[in-house]
Amino acid sequence: DILAAIKEHIDTGALPLKIQQNGPLAGKHVVITAGPTHEPIDPVRYIANRSSGKQGYALAKEAVKAGAKVTLVSGPVTLNAPSGVERISVETAQEMHEAVANVLPADIAIMAAAVADWKVANQGTEKIKKQADGSLPSLEFSENPDIARFVGHHESQRPKLVIGFAAETTNVEEHAKAKLTKKNTDWIIANDVSPETGIMGGDRNQIKIITRDGIEAWDDMPKGDVARKVIEKIAKTLSK
Amino acid sequence: DILAAIKEHIDTGALPLKIQQNGPLAGKHVVITAGPTHEPIDPVRYIANRSSGKQGYALAKEAVKAGAKVTLVSGPVTLNAPSGVERISVETAQEMHEAVANVLPADIAIMAAAVADWKVANQGTEKIKKQADGSLPSLEFSENPDIARFVGHHESQRPKLVIGFAAETTNVEEHAKAKLTKKNTDWIIANDVSPETGIMGGDRNQIKIITRDGIEAWDDMPKGDVARKVIEKIAKTLSK
Repeated sequence: DILAAIKEHIDTGALPLKIQQNGPLAGKHVVITAGPTHEPIDPVRYIANRSSGKQGYALAKEAVKAGAKVTLVSGPVTLNAPSGVERISVETAQEMHEAVANVLPADIAIMAAAVADWKVANQGTEKIKKQADGSLPSLEFSENPDIARFVGHHESQRPKLVIGFAAETTNVEEHAKAKLTKKNTDWIIANDVSPETGIMGGDRNQIKIITRDGIEAWDDMPKGDVARKVIEKIAKTLSK
Repeated sequence: DILAAIKEHIDTGALPLKIQQNGPLAGKHVVITAGPTHEPIDPVRYIANRSSGKQGYALAKEAVKAGAKVTLVSGPVTLNAPSGVERISVETAQEMHEAVANVLPADIAIMAAAVADWKVANQGTEKIKKQADGSLPSLEFSENPDIARFVGHHESQRPKLVIGFAAETTNVEEHAKAKLTKKNTDWIIANDVSPETGIMGGDRNQIKIITRDGIEAWDDMPKGDVARKVIEKIAKTLSK
């Protein structure tokens, strides 16, 4: 109904937020990536993933509320940008990589996007057609840039706090610890996105935060609450 | 702003339409497919296409207004179902095929969905991970059911009027004529979905209608106008 539409409109951030001018992140520049990337196969087809962008957008909203200057580099999603956020919309991993490289320096990088590991190397310039002989298409892949690793290893402009994400369906902690080291991030926020958890695309999240000091396992909660608590933890860490 | 949100809410059909109880399609059952299909690669990744579902949904809305009973078999889109339409939501081509088979008999079938020609034969049961040795994933494909061909060749329940779609980027008319024959449809509605036309995902369409009698080329117009005129042409054809 109309009331629900209005409520959704307000919830998605079209009205001004209460920004804390002297909030805990005042004067900080936060770069956040969010959503999926789309990797073209031909002019009409592409490879996508089930990321909705909700967790990244919630983080952007909470960072603005905490007084930060927020740049949100977003893959294709159906969400409105929270007000006060500068959004840069991209489609592919390559475009996201270039946009992130471009918006540095930043004090904090939160790499929440579900970036495609691979792109299609043999993209069709025209729509791939069914063949009369029933032969099947053959896709060749090549590796996309690793944006979190690029930021974590940046020699001149590494943000003080670099946070990667690990969306896994098996061995969540093990994969997350490996990513922390390989990408040289300060934290990895890990979750189990097996379909039965309903996390990818859903409104709730259950995360573990892997740091160099250990692991915190958080309860299942709405993505907005995860975002608020993560921003609080960031502010606390930077104030040390 | 809020007014725009309310207007969009109304435009997308949440309010009752003016249904013509004695409209030109009163007493007819129309099956319409719309949107893309998503073909899973693993639990988080899938192959998609740029269909928004807008043309199919506009056709469903106009068919209801013309008095028809409308069943809309829809792939994953962000549109609301027009009111008065029974929507069946599916994800894959296989699911769409089964849903269409299930809702027959119908008087008219309008196959506007952009159904994936192929599915991934070697789907991963867990998220495919980057390999330490840099080796790349290899996808194997198999052919999806051809839903328009199934309906066009149905021995016991072929609708009186079967309309297929051809979204092409080259040789549009040639491909459309081949589809008319191969799928045994009465019409093919063809368009050029090369990215520079802005048709796929956009609000306007420029179509050609290929029938057994010849070709009609329509001007570029909003998808809502295309829908209204197609439904008028259907009513006229059935009244002959």
